[in-house]
Order: sequence, then structure tokens, then C-alpha cells
Amino acid sequence: MHADSPLPSIARALEQIETGELRARDLAERCLERIAVRDTEVQAFIAHDAGRVRAQADAIDAGERRGLLRGIPYAVKDVIETAAYPTGYGSALYTGNRTARDAACVALSQEQGAVLLGKVATSEFATQTPGPTRNPLNLAHTPGGSSSGSAAAVADGMAMVAWGTQTTGSITRPAVYCGVVGYKPSFGLVSTAGVGVLSPSQDTVGALARSVADAAALVLGIHGRRYESAPNDARYTVGVCLSSQWRHAGGQAIDALRSWTAKLAAAGMRVKEFALPPAYEALIADQSRLVAYDARQALAYERLTANAGISPRLRERLAAGGVIGLDEYLAMQQRASALRCLVDGLFDGVDALVYPAAEDEAEEGILQSGSPRFGALWTLLHVPTVALPLDVGRRGLPLGAQLVGRPNRDLALLQLAEHASAFSPWLMGSAAA
Amino acid sequence: MHADSPLPSIARALEQIETGELRARDLAERCLERIAVRDTEVQAFIAHDAGRVRAQADAIDAGERRGLLRGIPYAVKDVIETAAYPTGYGSALYTGNRTARDAACVALSQEQGAVLLGKVATSEFATQTPGPTRNPLNLAHTPGGSSSGSAAAVADGMAMVAWGTQTTGSITRPAVYCGVVGYKPSFGLVSTAGVGVLSPSQDTVGALARSVADAAALVLGIHGRRYESAPNDARYTVGVCLSSQWRHAGGQAIDALRSWTAKLAAAGMRVKEFALPPAYEALIADQSRLVAYDARQALAYERLTANAGISPRLRERLAAGGVIGLDEYLAMQQRASALRCLVDGLFDGVDALVYPAAEDEAEEGILQSGSPRFGALWTLLHVPTVALPLDVGRRGLPLGAQLVGRPNRDLALLQLAEHASAFSPWLMGSAAA
Repeated sequence: MHADSPLPSIARALEQIETGELRARDLAERCLERIAVRDTEVQAFIAHDAGRVRAQADAIDAGERRGLLRGIPYAVKDVIETAAYPTGYGSALYTGNRTARDAACVALSQEQGAVLLGKVATSEFATQTPGPTRNPLNLAHTPGGSSSGSAAAVADGMAMVAWGTQTTGSITRPAVYCGVVGYKPSFGLVSTAGVGVLSPSQDTVGALARSVADAAALVLGIHGRRYESAPNDARYTVGVCLSSQWRHAGGQAIDALRSWTAKLAAAGMRVKEFALPPAYEALIADQSRLVAYDARQALAYERLTANAGISPRLRERLAAGGVIGLDEYLAMQQRASALRCLVDGLFDGVDALVYPAAEDEAEEGILQSGSPRFGALWTLLHVPTVALPLDVGRRGLPLGAQLVGRPNRDLALLQLAEHASAFSPWLMGSAAA
Repeated sequence: MHADSPLPSIARALEQIETGELRARDLAERCLERIAVRDTEVQAFIAHDAGRVRAQADAIDAGERRGLLRGIPYAVKDVIETAAYPTGYGSALYTGNRTARDAACVALSQEQGAVLLGKVATSEFATQTPGPTRNPLNLAHTPGGSSSGSAAAVADGMAMVAWGTQTTGSITRPAVYCGVVGYKPSFGLVSTAGVGVLSPSQDTVGALARSVADAAALVLGIHGRRYESAPNDARYTVGVCLSSQWRHAGGQAIDALRSWTAKLAAAGMRVKEFALPPAYEALIADQSRLVAYDARQALAYERLTANAGISPRLRERLAAGGVIGLDEYLAMQQRASALRCLVDGLFDGVDALVYPAAEDEAEEGILQSGSPRFGALWTLLHVPTVALPLDVGRRGLPLGAQLVGRPNRDLALLQLAEHASAFSPWLMGSAAA
């Protein structure tokens, strides 16, 4: 987090707006100014209109809508429909595409008084072919994907918070790459109405934010619920979940995770360690194939009518989906369902799991966005996750980890994650960048 | 089914098209003629263009696309997006609304060579405020809802098959009311990409057809899979599932169900009977509240920007969703998830369940569309169902029942249902209408 960020936390902003100390217009102007100064380089926003932003903020200041996100400026990933701005799904096929309405998460944000800043870039149809966005911490590096614009805009102080989506690792990875918090809620907690479909059994709408409390404020806020931190004396146990995927994590990523859990233990948290059971290991390979099959169906129109307008990388992915038979697809869905039914067993004696979030620091160049693999299993299992940047790597970019909670027990996970985030040098501003 | 229907079964049509005995254009013309003769009264179609239909059929006859639905004319419910026709969601707010693309189920039907006839009416946002469609068997009666146009078009011979959707009982009820087969697949089997969202954890895309085999041909066909009937000597056991909901079924509906299962038993099928366990009973009440909560989120944009354009009935439903708290919502989702994990237990020793499909014959008038209640539990549980019209009631309209299968075991359910449908006087054309 930028120590010099002129943006307060959501809770603080709401307080100050309530007392009149701060106007929604002030917050909006800080974001607009940052966009004006920085976005030519960062390229997080693909559509924003300062006039519309100011008009919304002024209406809030005039007393319209006194909801739980009153005056909070937010950005929306470009696979999420907005009536005020085109929705392009990160595809040249949909440049300028207008939709008749706002997606549920956008309309509900507006209902709570939030101020829509505009649309932020995504990779192509939220898959792996990146958009134009650069990592605001180092413009030569990728911000990750597919919620690239959401993570970059929040990391750079252009938005207080942003909506993103995850089908494999599209919130988790960009959050850590850009040094912000990525909260993927339990499957279904945020309505997917008005959100581009990739894999209906996995697509999840979530938040990119500068703190756990801010991410929680957005997601709970659209349900009319205020986030409240846990009491300071709460006692937690976390289970570091070892799996075959750890071999893909670089040494410094693992070191950052270990150093963090050591701090948690030193502060009184119980830290256990266990190996992911083999049945879940098998699911990791299924996940990518399920997405390929589903994406081939979801993007059938584009594949059949405008195949040349799809990137070679995505075409290859869709072709891979085409060689999977229906019986095999159903068998994979069955295995996923069966393990969703057993997933509580992973939490025996622990309140949350600790897992890597990305292989390493964000790689150089913006033609690749890094691997989403560490999100795959948790997205498929429908469990909530909170990705946290932890420490700084050799190239000056953040390294992180994620916490994984029980399905539909999001509040408990968020409270634990907020507590644990206090031991992240990156989030506490003490990482030597 | 009309004994004088000029439309062959899908399997027969595919054979005849393959051998050149029949042209796709002939099939299309039969449907177009029926639409021209009947639809002024029935009002199933809200948009169709004979020129476009003929052009598609001619292209198929010229050798384009030789898929598993080659030349089959089909209709699409108006909550499902089509590039060629507006998508109005059954709401005056969206009259003439254009979308940039076809929904997955439409694009995949086209990929397999099917011929899109046009859009058919739905109730408002697929909820309970009906559209203009009348029951083709008796124009003074409702066709049911929300897949009203889909059921009516198929029942009247205007389309060979149609896509519908179900969030509570929106395929099951209109199928039986109009005397056709309604197949609600396992949750997720047909991609919801491009389909209007109401309740993301329940919205299911399925088929209205004149036979079980036709419904199976459509749904399996878009997965590149041909439907094959079970061997004639297959032995089945069905379990009649008694519940508190049976008290809502009229005497003649129950008689039709009982008379049918007696015939199945006489033909050698084992018929058992058991009571729905209490935990599932509790879920029935949850289902309606889950939909209300979800719909309030999904339709947030309309509620906030155009509330007066929503029908009073739907406004009331959305308001009911607004008094449910997040904790209660999550508790209901937890209970539903828990029972989905146990649902195989309902099938101990039986291949499928038998359950009522509608309270009675379609009621008089088109301002009400009947109760969707008999679909609620099965939609929430994500299990596949096949609704069958069975016999004729006092008012000359069909009475029916539904068969319920194990999750993701759709082929087994379809084969059983095809076998059982041979004992439906209505479907065999021997019901005294």
C-alpha cells in the first residue's frame, strides 16, 4: 500500500462523510486526479467519464442514498455489465458493446451509495490473453489477470475498491501481484446476474481492495450488512495445506509464506500443517479441463461466428474443451460435487487454510499474466479465499499467500484474515520496497 | 400430442433428411404454416422472421452443417439471448432489447444444424406475471409459465422443440398444462451463458418437446451426443415420493398419477412408495425465499431505476426478498447444499422418483399461470426431472406427473422416462380428449 495514499479506509471515509468532515466529491476528485496523472501509463481504466463521476458524488453529497457504501468510489471489471459504460469483455469483438443494464453487483453498489468510476480492463473474456494494463508497482511487469484493471486501479489509488471475478485464479493472483487484498467470496454470495459467463459452476464475483476490511465492506455492503472486526482476543488456528502444487511456488514465495506464519505463531495463533488428501489432488487437474469444456460452450457464438477474432491462445483452449466427451465432463462434475460435500473435513481443527497465491513476484512483460493455478482448487470447491500480499521480493514486487475458509462462512474467514493481515509487512507499510 | 401433427419425431426427421426424403425447408415450412394459421390466437411467438427461417433451412439443405440437429426447427424462450431477435425477458422494460450475441444453448443448437424459428413468450423475467400466450389445447386457459411460449409452440406443432428455463417449476408445469414433455436437466448441464439470471444457484436451461426422445436429442445434441433408447428388456424400479405437497394436488391429478403407476407395475416395473424425509420438507419453504432474495439482487437495476415498470406481483416478491437477512440467506444456502450432498439417499433401491407435476389441469384465464410448487424442491436439489402429460381431465386438458433422477445421471433418467412415457394415454394419443 502506498504510504502516501490520499485515500482513507472505507470505514474511515464513511465516518468522515457522515460527520461532514469529508465529501463524496473530495474522494471522487482524489481518484480522478490519480487516474489523470497515472492511467496513461498504467492503463487500468478503459472507460471513465469524470462528469458522470462528479455528478454521482454531488448527488450523494446532496443527501441522495445514505447506504453502507455512501460516497465510496469503485471500479468495475469489464466483464461486468454497466448501463453507463460499454462492456467489452476484454475482446476486440465487443469494443463499444452496450448493454441495457447494470449487473447486480453494480446496481447494488449504487443502491448503497457507492460512486461508479468506470470500467477497468480484463484479459480476453476473463481468460489468459492479457489486456493493456501494467503493474502500477513496476510498469514493466504484468499486473496478473484476469482482474488486472481491478487490481491495478486499487493498488495505484485510482479507486478505493473494485469488483473483479475469478473462475480459476483471477482475483487471487492479480491481488498479490499488485500488492492489494483479493477476496473471492463463497460461490454464489455475489449474484452473477449481468456478469459474462465462462464456467457457470465456478464463476465468482469478488473484491479487490486495499485492506481486508475494505473488501469485506464492499461484499457485505451490497447485502445491507456492515462488516465488523472480530474482538482482539479471538484465538485462531490455521492449517498450512501442503500439496503437489507447492513445487510450482518459487523459493522466495514460500519463504514469505513461512515467515508470515512464523509471525502468526509468535503472536499466539496456532499453526498446523497437513497434506492435501489425494482425492483433492486429482481435482486440480479436472478444474482446468472443466473450464475448457464450459468455456467452449459459453463462447460458442464467438467461436462459430467470429473465430478469427479470438486470440490463438484462447482458440487453443476452446479446442482442448472440444475433445472432452460428455461422460467425462459429467464424471468430473460428479467428483467436484462429491468433494464439495466433504470439504468441511479439510477444516477439522483449523479455522482456515494457508496456501500459496502465486508462483512468485509478477513476471516481467505484459504478454503473460502468470499462472492462475493456486486458485483452481478453491474456486472449484466454492470456498471463500482472501489473498494477501505479504512481503517484498528480489525485484521489489510483492509476494503473498491466501487464506481459505469454509463454504458460506465468509464472515469468519474475513475476521481471521483481517487479524492475520496485521502481520503482513507489505500491508502494514513496513516492507522494504 | 396431435394425432394429425405433420411433424415427425426428431430421430425420424434426421433420418429422412440424411436420406434426402425430407428437406429442412419442408420442416421449416410446416412450422411456419402452423405459426401463420394459429399464432394470432395462441400468441406463443413474440418475434419470428420467415425469411430468416427459410434462409437457414436452405443453407442446411445446401449441405451446410451436418450436426446432430440438422434441419430441426426450434424456438427459444425470451429470457435467452439471440443475436437475430430482440430479447425482452417478458418485461415491457425490455421491449425491443438487442443483445450482441446468442446464448450458449442457441449457438450450440445452430452448430448442430438446428433452425432457429424465433423467440417465444415468457412471463415477466421468468417469474409469475404471465405473458400473452394461451393454451393451444383450449385458448381460454393458461399455458402455465414461465416457459409458456415454449410449451405452447411445441404443443401446437409450431416448433419441433423449444428451449425453456426453470428456477422453480417453469418447465415442468407448462409442459403438463400444454400436453408436452418437459425436461429439466441436472443443474449446469446446459450452460447458462446468455440466459437472464434470476437465482444463480437454481436457474436451469431445459427442453420442451413432443416426446422424451426429442427432449433428449436437443439437450444431448448440443453436447455432440446422440440419444439412444434403453434396451427393451431394461428393468426399472420407481419410488412414488409422498410429501406434504401432495395435499395441493387435486383428486384427478393424483388419480392420473396412480393410474399410470398401476400401468407401469402391470407392465413389470417395480413401484415402491415412501415419504419424503422431514429435512427435505423444510427445504421446500426455503426455496421460495431463496428465489425472492436472489431475484431482488438479480433485478436490482430494474428495481432501482424503473420500479414502476415492474408488475405489482413481482414488486411484492422482491420486497419479500428484502426482509430476509444475509445470515438467514446463508443458512438456507447451507441447508440446500447439505441436502444436495445427501440426495443420493432418496434413490436407495429406486431408479427414479415419481412426483406430481401440477395441481390440476391448466386453470381458466391467462392472468394466472398456476403454481410452480411441485418443481421447487427438485430445482433446488439440482436433480434432473422429466415431466409427462398422462391423461385427460374433466375440462379436456392434460394431467401429468414428473420423474426425478439422480444428479448428473440424466441419460439413465431419460431412458427410464422414455419407457414410462409409453404408458401415458396422452402421449400415446389414446387419451379421450
